[in-house]
Amino acid sequence: MTPLAISMGEPAGIGPDVILALFARRAELRLPPFIVFGHTAFLEARAQRLGLAIDVVAAQPGNAAALFGSALPVFNIGGMVEDRPGEPDTGAAGVVIAAIEQAVSAVRMGACRGLVTAPIHKGVLYGAGFTHPGHTEFLAALCAENGVEPLPVMMLAHEDLRTVPLTIHVPIKDVPQLITGRLILETLRVIARDLRARFGLAAPRIAVAGLNPHAGEGGTIGREEIEIIIPALERARAEGIDAVGPLPGDTLFFPRHWRQFDAVLAMYHDQALIPIKTVAFDAGVNVTLGLPIVRTSPDHGTAFDLAGTGKASTSSFLAAIAMADQMTTKSA
Amino acid sequence: MTPLAISMGEPAGIGPDVILALFARRAELRLPPFIVFGHTAFLEARAQRLGLAIDVVAAQPGNAAALFGSALPVFNIGGMVEDRPGEPDTGAAGVVIAAIEQAVSAVRMGACRGLVTAPIHKGVLYGAGFTHPGHTEFLAALCAENGVEPLPVMMLAHEDLRTVPLTIHVPIKDVPQLITGRLILETLRVIARDLRARFGLAAPRIAVAGLNPHAGEGGTIGREEIEIIIPALERARAEGIDAVGPLPGDTLFFPRHWRQFDAVLAMYHDQALIPIKTVAFDAGVNVTLGLPIVRTSPDHGTAFDLAGTGKASTSSFLAAIAMADQMTTKSA
Repeated sequence: MTPLAISMGEPAGIGPDVILALFARRAELRLPPFIVFGHTAFLEARAQRLGLAIDVVAAQPGNAAALFGSALPVFNIGGMVEDRPGEPDTGAAGVVIAAIEQAVSAVRMGACRGLVTAPIHKGVLYGAGFTHPGHTEFLAALCAENGVEPLPVMMLAHEDLRTVPLTIHVPIKDVPQLITGRLILETLRVIARDLRARFGLAAPRIAVAGLNPHAGEGGTIGREEIEIIIPALERARAEGIDAVGPLPGDTLFFPRHWRQFDAVLAMYHDQALIPIKTVAFDAGVNVTLGLPIVRTSPDHGTAFDLAGTGKASTSSFLAAIAMADQMTTKSA
Repeated sequence: MTPLAISMGEPAGIGPDVILALFARRAELRLPPFIVFGHTAFLEARAQRLGLAIDVVAAQPGNAAALFGSALPVFNIGGMVEDRPGEPDTGAAGVVIAAIEQAVSAVRMGACRGLVTAPIHKGVLYGAGFTHPGHTEFLAALCAENGVEPLPVMMLAHEDLRTVPLTIHVPIKDVPQLITGRLILETLRVIARDLRARFGLAAPRIAVAGLNPHAGEGGTIGREEIEIIIPALERARAEGIDAVGPLPGDTLFFPRHWRQFDAVLAMYHDQALIPIKTVAFDAGVNVTLGLPIVRTSPDHGTAFDLAGTGKASTSSFLAAIAMADQMTTKSA
């Protein structure tokens, strides 16, 4: 069986802890086989610190599934990574970055089915010369074809609730001018295509939230709905994309409303993330649409204060593995 | 027992339907006695249309509780109101407005305990010369003392989750400049005071959301947190208000986070309303803080398409009655 790929992420954070804790419960949780792209000696040391009796074995995608029952298969990246929870070290950045690069390669060449990424800490990587705005943009760059990067689209998912923020890590004051018809249309294309290809939805319905309260209430509370969003939705529908809106951002999240849709396109970060966090407790998953590979990640960061303690919640990472598994089964 | 006051709201909408449906189940639901400020003949006609066997009786606050077991007590406002569900008529606007005015008077003079308002339709009232931006601003004007109107503060509540939008029905592009230290401070004062006075919370803790994603992430995603919100919170704490923040608007709504607080001050409409709608289904309540009277209302509008059908959900109005009852019991 083709394994999933997991990139180890920041060694000073909780990513390795969570990967190890889940591996230890792989039979009980019926986890699909995976291979970790990371550092064998470091993972052995972290497992020991956490009191987990885990054999770590150097492996390749081709033999990972066979090893998975007896040991944690790790595609070893050469370099020095010390087990210092909560103390990020730019010296390890090269391994962190190479782990992601190798994992993406493995998925692109079909040796792994999909990629689950453990959290990285951008600040640490910047110190080592990393130049991408974030994890997802780095993945998009690695997936460039003929020099053209795909448009990565961030989706948050919890069970049947899937939300996409059109704009992400930008100040609220900049959001209105960043909302363009082109961005809406391109994002809707990615969502519609990937809901079909990755989620097995033959005729995906997408709700689109308004920017303003009450979706602008006919222009009395802002005009972006009339001037930008509605024309973009008309173009999307003309292409056969079943996009409905703009709908008021608040009432759209009544469960009886969003349940009528396969995904919700929100206009900005909190509008997309608040409903997920409200319902998902710890089990929300971050899915990157638009890439030639399946990529999921947990809905948390490195949490330096919890690293090495064994107290980090595994819920979101577990959900991210399950999501990557489902997405690569349905698309197979 | 002093009754609650209920203003009838827009007669073409679902307000009257819901009031009548709840009254019919008053014993089963153990409703506290209330008196409706409205129009007896219209309410009789609507009850008949809905197939509800309800005696409607003209009453005053002083005899409402005694009548409540046998008939619906109505403080009758003279005028003409026809039973035409879904067909708003400016001819009824005078009755709608006077019902609110009389209900506020009754609560202010202590003849009623608190006010639950059924939804009005501003457009209909504007056609009859109504000049207030909304229902709540009208109530604030009616509560003016020596010509000074109180600052009404809108709170959404569902069980233990209480959220307050700092800005409400304004375009997102205008939100950043409307967020001032003075508005934050005055709003926090109202919230802290009313959580004590109306909710019986001796030491209320208030979470304050950031404006930008990740609460600005130390200034890298917007500077309003640093320049406006943090200084305002320092002033609030210097006054003894237990205000914590700015906290990221999304993770704040993890239940384990918001449960550490008695209320959340959000920066704009959807940031406050999305979490409530996501969890409350139909049972969210709108509470107006800052007024000299207790006022609650359901979390829905006139819903013309459902009026007269008997299909309108009573959950939110029931929750609004229960909330007004609790708030006036605790503050008594």
